[in-house]
Amino acid sequence: MPVGAPLDGRGGSSLIESSAVLHLASETASAWLPRACEALDEVLLDHAHCEKKAAGAAIKLLFSYPHHRFLQEPLAALAREELEHFEQVLAQLDRRGVRYATLKPSPYGVALHALVRRDEPDRLLDVLLIAALIEARSCERFQILAGGVEDPALAALYASLLASEARHHGLYRDLAGQLVPRVVRDARWLELARAEAEIVARPCDWVRLHAG
Amino acid sequence: MPVGAPLDGRGGSSLIESSAVLHLASETASAWLPRACEALDEVLLDHAHCEKKAAGAAIKLLFSYPHHRFLQEPLAALAREELEHFEQVLAQLDRRGVRYATLKPSPYGVALHALVRRDEPDRLLDVLLIAALIEARSCERFQILAGGVEDPALAALYASLLASEARHHGLYRDLAGQLVPRVVRDARWLELARAEAEIVARPCDWVRLHAG
Repeated sequence: MPVGAPLDGRGGSSLIESSAVLHLASETASAWLPRACEALDEVLLDHAHCEKKAAGAAIKLLFSYPHHRFLQEPLAALAREELEHFEQVLAQLDRRGVRYATLKPSPYGVALHALVRRDEPDRLLDVLLIAALIEARSCERFQILAGGVEDPALAALYASLLASEARHHGLYRDLAGQLVPRVVRDARWLELARAEAEIVARPCDWVRLHAG
Repeated sequence: MPVGAPLDGRGGSSLIESSAVLHLASETASAWLPRACEALDEVLLDHAHCEKKAAGAAIKLLFSYPHHRFLQEPLAALAREELEHFEQVLAQLDRRGVRYATLKPSPYGVALHALVRRDEPDRLLDVLLIAALIEARSCERFQILAGGVEDPALAALYASLLASEARHHGLYRDLAGQLVPRVVRDARWLELARAEAEIVARPCDWVRLHAG
């Protein structure tokens, strides 16, 4: 699909109108929603781990880059929100009687992080942009889920998370734009966004928030 | 000093009346406050890193022990609070014109964690109790600082953090009590509290929240 094509009326929140806002290079295929709905508990469990990992990744940046003053408060606040989402997803797991346990993750995160370059500031730029891409893809899929799942409490949760994920996406992009000139950021974004579109579309035997 | 001897009227908050509440095996020597006041910016910078480390330690437990369901929400909520404190301390550093930067930590944390036993559930029990001890010592020292520093904004911050630290102390102890029988927890607590009292009193060339 072309960059910026509007999402195709799955009934999601109107907060996020198109993948152009999220700067994604692809839209999720229509086959994903029915697969996700069939394995909704597994998707929800994966989601819990994703929120935890998002918090962990933000905090890891606080430890790795104390000399970048501009990262500190924004990433601390973002990590707090991810932790709150983690708790919200745990509550949904409990409500649905799903045991919180480990889960084989999708290959998405590992494949994306394999693209991180070694030298600074390239390394941090890539980490920030990949975080922004993950937030964007989460946002896009929450929109699909919000309009597509039958469980009203889950639909409401996904709808409520949309705005946060979009904001986190924008925050990570903004931080990247404070690290390097915008033209450098935008050029690297295009490369990584295309790679993300290819990675998220790879065939996967199990359904995850960022796969299948 | 004997366990449970009351804190000696330094004018701190009355929320925490004695080291008995905090289950500490010693009180901070009276020589610490004037040293801390002389190096207050350094103590504040150390404090920022301590809050960050406290959040990181809680999140690390979420990753290490996903099968312990009882840990998840309490530690996520605690990490959120630590991050909020981190942001508050950063604001105080900015206000006082102190550059946020790395700082040689006190040997306290490393010395305490060297006491962690290897096999489970001993390992997790020790990690939880050491976290509780660190929170308790922070609380005791915030009480001293709240009553002793001249900067009213800083005094107010320390006073506001007292209750949180005491609560975190209690939370970690409670979690330890859910992991093993209370009698086992309490016996190990006594050992670790005595060790902590010895470690925090070790001579140190620089002033830190948990040294000096």
